[in-house]
Amino acid sequence: MSGLPDPQAARAARLACRQGPARPTSGMAPGFTQCNMISLPRDWAWDFLLYAQRNPKPCPVLDVTDPGSHRTAMAPDADLRTDIPLYRIWRDGVLAKEVSDATAAWAEHPDLVTFLIGCSFTFETPLQQAGIEVRHIAQDRNVPMYLTNRDCRPAGRLHGKMVVSMRPIPADRVAEAAMISGRTPAVHGAPVHIGAPEGLGIADLQKPDFGDAVEIRAGEVPVFWACGVTPQAALMASRPPFAITHAPGYMFITDIPETHWQV
Amino acid sequence: MSGLPDPQAARAARLACRQGPARPTSGMAPGFTQCNMISLPRDWAWDFLLYAQRNPKPCPVLDVTDPGSHRTAMAPDADLRTDIPLYRIWRDGVLAKEVSDATAAWAEHPDLVTFLIGCSFTFETPLQQAGIEVRHIAQDRNVPMYLTNRDCRPAGRLHGKMVVSMRPIPADRVAEAAMISGRTPAVHGAPVHIGAPEGLGIADLQKPDFGDAVEIRAGEVPVFWACGVTPQAALMASRPPFAITHAPGYMFITDIPETHWQV
Repeated sequence: MSGLPDPQAARAARLACRQGPARPTSGMAPGFTQCNMISLPRDWAWDFLLYAQRNPKPCPVLDVTDPGSHRTAMAPDADLRTDIPLYRIWRDGVLAKEVSDATAAWAEHPDLVTFLIGCSFTFETPLQQAGIEVRHIAQDRNVPMYLTNRDCRPAGRLHGKMVVSMRPIPADRVAEAAMISGRTPAVHGAPVHIGAPEGLGIADLQKPDFGDAVEIRAGEVPVFWACGVTPQAALMASRPPFAITHAPGYMFITDIPETHWQV
Repeated sequence: MSGLPDPQAARAARLACRQGPARPTSGMAPGFTQCNMISLPRDWAWDFLLYAQRNPKPCPVLDVTDPGSHRTAMAPDADLRTDIPLYRIWRDGVLAKEVSDATAAWAEHPDLVTFLIGCSFTFETPLQQAGIEVRHIAQDRNVPMYLTNRDCRPAGRLHGKMVVSMRPIPADRVAEAAMISGRTPAVHGAPVHIGAPEGLGIADLQKPDFGDAVEIRAGEVPVFWACGVTPQAALMASRPPFAITHAPGYMFITDIPETHWQV
């Protein structure tokens, strides 16, 4: 026993994602890194990589493909066009449709550059191992995500607000949740905001902008982490002509053990 | 007293760097982040930013300027053309000359994109505060740096070996030095190699490829950190037509407290 999770579990999870039906990936293939995805025409790649560099909390870039490639070093046998459960196709900053197979959309632009971005699902296993319940997993829902009032630092033609994910945590475990997630800065790291949702411009926690609402119990505090859906907020605000992304909560599962990101 | 270092100290240090004489910046403006610098024509900027993303230990990018700009958000009153003590001008991958003022070189290419990259000098203050002597500071020398046999992951036209800096540490403090530096992954983080220099292809520690040799005492172990001179090794190997960099050990001093990078 190596102590590392079984790589076959990551491959099996990707196969399930490829074959459907589409479901959020939180809790799938525990121990493996999950990623947000955004594919943009080559002409927009510089602006996006710079946007990510300038906003590392919401946009930690873990891999970038060569133009036109649908392969990643993070899962050599995967096909980025099919192995995410649900994709979004964007035209001029508007969500045009959601598809479970992006092969046809990919073929429209032979020079797409694909960015894989860290996802907070990656530190949910350590939270659970510490005995901290992850509510949306316990309730078998997608994680709640909110568009905040915080501007990201712009880059070239890209600008937009930060998106956050939220997990309710008992008040006496919040510090531990902050420290556990803080050990993995490449997958969003420590929370950006704890409590006081109005400070982020969030009026009603029961009405997330993406994903599902979850129960918040007495004595629990909403804890907010920077979220890899932030690039989709930039698409809506900045309107590049074309993009493919994952659907929020429907992530790309890699072969990289989540322990790889611990500092 | 805020507990933060006095910002005036960073400005005064930059002014001293601007006016000369040129000296290595290790130990200057303690508590402030120091940076490596590389400026490349716009046409090479994508390849470089991707190279940095693929090699985050040696090339943690802390800021990127707009094309042609010599300003950085990390020190708003600074001029990147003059505020480094010693610059290197590169032509076709060959070091053409060293200058203390790069204004004329900058004017040759109006579209230069400048990258500021984390520097291990940033965690030397915490090492010293823990009572770990930083030998090259104690000996008033430049830090020793070595070209290793480790390939970086290539990106576009850029490829090259990793460069490391070395500090001799008493055997009973090595773990602590690893942990202290590991808390700041944005400025190279934990060591990449501890002891056994032959494993990096280093034949003689007393003959560094950059900087100065330092004394290694009985009971001390050479500890190697990924180094922001790695981009210069990529220049030599990949031969872009033009580049401006800092001279190894002669860094750009920013206004950002080094505690900013702690996770």
